[in-house]
Amino acid sequence: MNTLARPLRRHQALERLLHPASIAVIGASPRPGAFGSAVLRNLGGYRGRVYPVNARYQEIGELACYPSIGAVPDRVDCALIATAREAVEPIARECVAAGVGGAIVFASGYAETGQPERVAEQVRLAAIARDSGMALLGPNTVGMVNALVGAAITFMDITPVPSPAPRAVGLISQSGALGMALAQAVTRGVSFSHVLTSGNSCDIDMADCVAYLADDPACAVIACLFEGMSEPERLLAAAELAWQADKPLVVYKMATGEEGATAALSHTGSLAGSYAAYRAAFRRAGVVLVEDYESLIPTASFFAKAPKPTAPGVAIVAASGGAAIMAADRAQQHGVPLPQPNPAVRAILEARIPEFGSARNPCDVTAQVINDPNSLIECVEALLAAPEYGALAMPAVYSSEASTRFIPVYDDLAGRYGKIICSPWQSEWRDGPGAKEREQARNVALFPTVNSCFAALAAANWRAGRRVGPRHAGWRRQQRRIWRRGRSPPLPPRC
Amino acid sequence: MNTLARPLRRHQALERLLHPASIAVIGASPRPGAFGSAVLRNLGGYRGRVYPVNARYQEIGELACYPSIGAVPDRVDCALIATAREAVEPIARECVAAGVGGAIVFASGYAETGQPERVAEQVRLAAIARDSGMALLGPNTVGMVNALVGAAITFMDITPVPSPAPRAVGLISQSGALGMALAQAVTRGVSFSHVLTSGNSCDIDMADCVAYLADDPACAVIACLFEGMSEPERLLAAAELAWQADKPLVVYKMATGEEGATAALSHTGSLAGSYAAYRAAFRRAGVVLVEDYESLIPTASFFAKAPKPTAPGVAIVAASGGAAIMAADRAQQHGVPLPQPNPAVRAILEARIPEFGSARNPCDVTAQVINDPNSLIECVEALLAAPEYGALAMPAVYSSEASTRFIPVYDDLAGRYGKIICSPWQSEWRDGPGAKEREQARNVALFPTVNSCFAALAAANWRAGRRVGPRHAGWRRQQRRIWRRGRSPPLPPRC
Repeated sequence: MNTLARPLRRHQALERLLHPASIAVIGASPRPGAFGSAVLRNLGGYRGRVYPVNARYQEIGELACYPSIGAVPDRVDCALIATAREAVEPIARECVAAGVGGAIVFASGYAETGQPERVAEQVRLAAIARDSGMALLGPNTVGMVNALVGAAITFMDITPVPSPAPRAVGLISQSGALGMALAQAVTRGVSFSHVLTSGNSCDIDMADCVAYLADDPACAVIACLFEGMSEPERLLAAAELAWQADKPLVVYKMATGEEGATAALSHTGSLAGSYAAYRAAFRRAGVVLVEDYESLIPTASFFAKAPKPTAPGVAIVAASGGAAIMAADRAQQHGVPLPQPNPAVRAILEARIPEFGSARNPCDVTAQVINDPNSLIECVEALLAAPEYGALAMPAVYSSEASTRFIPVYDDLAGRYGKIICSPWQSEWRDGPGAKEREQARNVALFPTVNSCFAALAAANWRAGRRVGPRHAGWRRQQRRIWRRGRSPPLPPRC
Repeated sequence: MNTLARPLRRHQALERLLHPASIAVIGASPRPGAFGSAVLRNLGGYRGRVYPVNARYQEIGELACYPSIGAVPDRVDCALIATAREAVEPIARECVAAGVGGAIVFASGYAETGQPERVAEQVRLAAIARDSGMALLGPNTVGMVNALVGAAITFMDITPVPSPAPRAVGLISQSGALGMALAQAVTRGVSFSHVLTSGNSCDIDMADCVAYLADDPACAVIACLFEGMSEPERLLAAAELAWQADKPLVVYKMATGEEGATAALSHTGSLAGSYAAYRAAFRRAGVVLVEDYESLIPTASFFAKAPKPTAPGVAIVAASGGAAIMAADRAQQHGVPLPQPNPAVRAILEARIPEFGSARNPCDVTAQVINDPNSLIECVEALLAAPEYGALAMPAVYSSEASTRFIPVYDDLAGRYGKIICSPWQSEWRDGPGAKEREQARNVALFPTVNSCFAALAAANWRAGRRVGPRHAGWRRQQRRIWRRGRSPPLPPRC
């Protein structure tokens, strides 16, 4: 990392900004519709101290309002600058003078306009931050959420992000609106520790945010919605920190084509770069690159739940033969081995599954077994116990209240065997009964598509193989062998 | 079609079975949990005459029950055989003797078991149907829905399918559970005329069903979840009927790999065939082949709404720069041209969009314009009116009640200009506010992913080009030209 033009900021350097004990809202306002009013509303659940700053008011709601940041009688960790662009630069200097830990700048109209004087304005803003050491998020950001302290520092009318579960996702997005749209996964129970939107990233960029989250114990997995950056080596260095911290870094790269790259330049002023180059570099760095925007959060949520696979093989268990077929298609496409069950497991399956089902892998237990829960539970337990399988894939076909009944049972079973059950959702009732129940189960991962499910399982195997280090190639050869033979080899150490 | 081993059944030949005025439930039962009980419950909304048949009962609920199909004092159009497999064959013969129009067989355990005597049993069942001319759906089917007459002839506890809208989707699936899971799109307002699950397809197969729907005025678009069949030429011949009827035929092909194909054989006894061969044949036949299961219904619903494109170009309008970038990425990937707006339109955009947005295509109107609905409406109207655009893509980024307010305005505008507005859904709140409202709008198409949205737009352009006939190649060349030049050519005739 010595070769980076700017070293990565680590946790301590950003802690006051991103995990503040006190927040000043500069441009606070009681006027509905104003940014400064929306932020105060969003800070209603904040468990720190809030200081509105605006010379026009003595108080806003129940809070005393201060004429300037310098007048606030407390150490301010995070100063939100919610003013028009023209006022930002002098205020940023005042923040430095007041010893503020970090600042967030909402205003747009900087480098993303492409106008030379606006680019220069952004460079000056960045210089204020760098010269002083005051961290700066933005400009052109919609803000951030730190769920640990209930700080939703944004003007958007966002869905509240509750306190994180023990293994939460830290989300970083250059795009503000998309970042907040992804965070709406809280509505079905995905847990986030942080939602950071970096906008034009003139000072703190996505790489700094990744480095910060790599150090943060509340974040188990890092998800990035990434456009591009001028020094991609920074992101790769941050990826190495995430790898060392054993936190999967899941990335969706936007602006993969020429049209998208042109648009990115006028969005956050980002250099999109070559997608092929990014893809290769990410792979070398151990980054899980998802091929669809819509797979980013489900894949991150999967990694937040999944233990390291104890075997690369996956057993498919479906109540619908059609679902079993589609799962097998995608397993093959992504190179996920589907070993056949060992004789003892096979005997259990054959005893339970009717002749018109399929007691092999993929396993079609048929609707008959679904209606006889004990049979299904026995089949699932036998497969979870089998050493040849590192995970189960159980497609969620039809959404109904009845189908949710046994999710806690499968969840417990999976936990007992230290494996994950992956459920691609196959009903067009997208948030129908069973979706939330799966997402909220500790050992069940919900996917919106069959493809994203097996891409994630393949990525988990790949990460496990990469962790083995020099034996990586051997592991890959083993995977190919078991794919052909249909059974699992003994596992390499540390995996 | 003279070369087919079995000619396709057309509408008239299947009408009594698939659009029945009277239904007999053989194996009817008052016992909760029995197939024959579930079917009677599902027929609660049926607008025809229902006759339970079971020698054990004199009446079931308020209906008289008959000892045999021959004892029913009415012409029975559709006989549902809800008995165990062993009883099916003699009952099927009784149905023939009673002059029944068609039969549905739920029982499993036929050719899908792979056992020679069971294969023979299925062959005999098929012979009963063919020799008599009585149409037979199944065996190993979960049944069907004809929404025109409210007939849900299935044992599954399905989400009710309401009376179809004027341009409804006809859905056909070999897999029963997946077919019903796809039909759960009714929960957000997708309209279905029929849901037909063909199971082992021993008599009526997917090709017959396509031919039937091609003739049915209630169905505007045909969606197929397809595993495979022994005589694929039949499906291609049916596709030709759909093409002649100007009904898009949208197919997802399962069992694309070797593992999936093996599973298909034990699911519905289908020969999966080579995916590459199917893909090529479908393309020649004008079939829209979707690459993901999850795109099938959204693509069909799009085609049910979309007028023929008057130009291949698409304008992207987003309130989020990130959403604009991703849309542009996928447009390029699928070869959907993004011509730049003509000078008059550009002037309107520039007057409305702030400098930090983008008054080009893709168009980033920014959050500022979203908060000034009149500006956005003017931009949208200018783009809809521009001859260089056949459709608009407006990503739905953040799900909120506020975002739903203007959907009716855009819907009306799109209708006025005879174009469709496509909305890829980008919030992780999958059924959040705005999803239903878009799905239910006449001129707005909702997509679960950016990729499926542009794949569908590309397919609509491709179909329009194919309809031009011999000038197809010229149309393709034009498309390539405008992609480079960024503007639309005059359109070929008839498109």
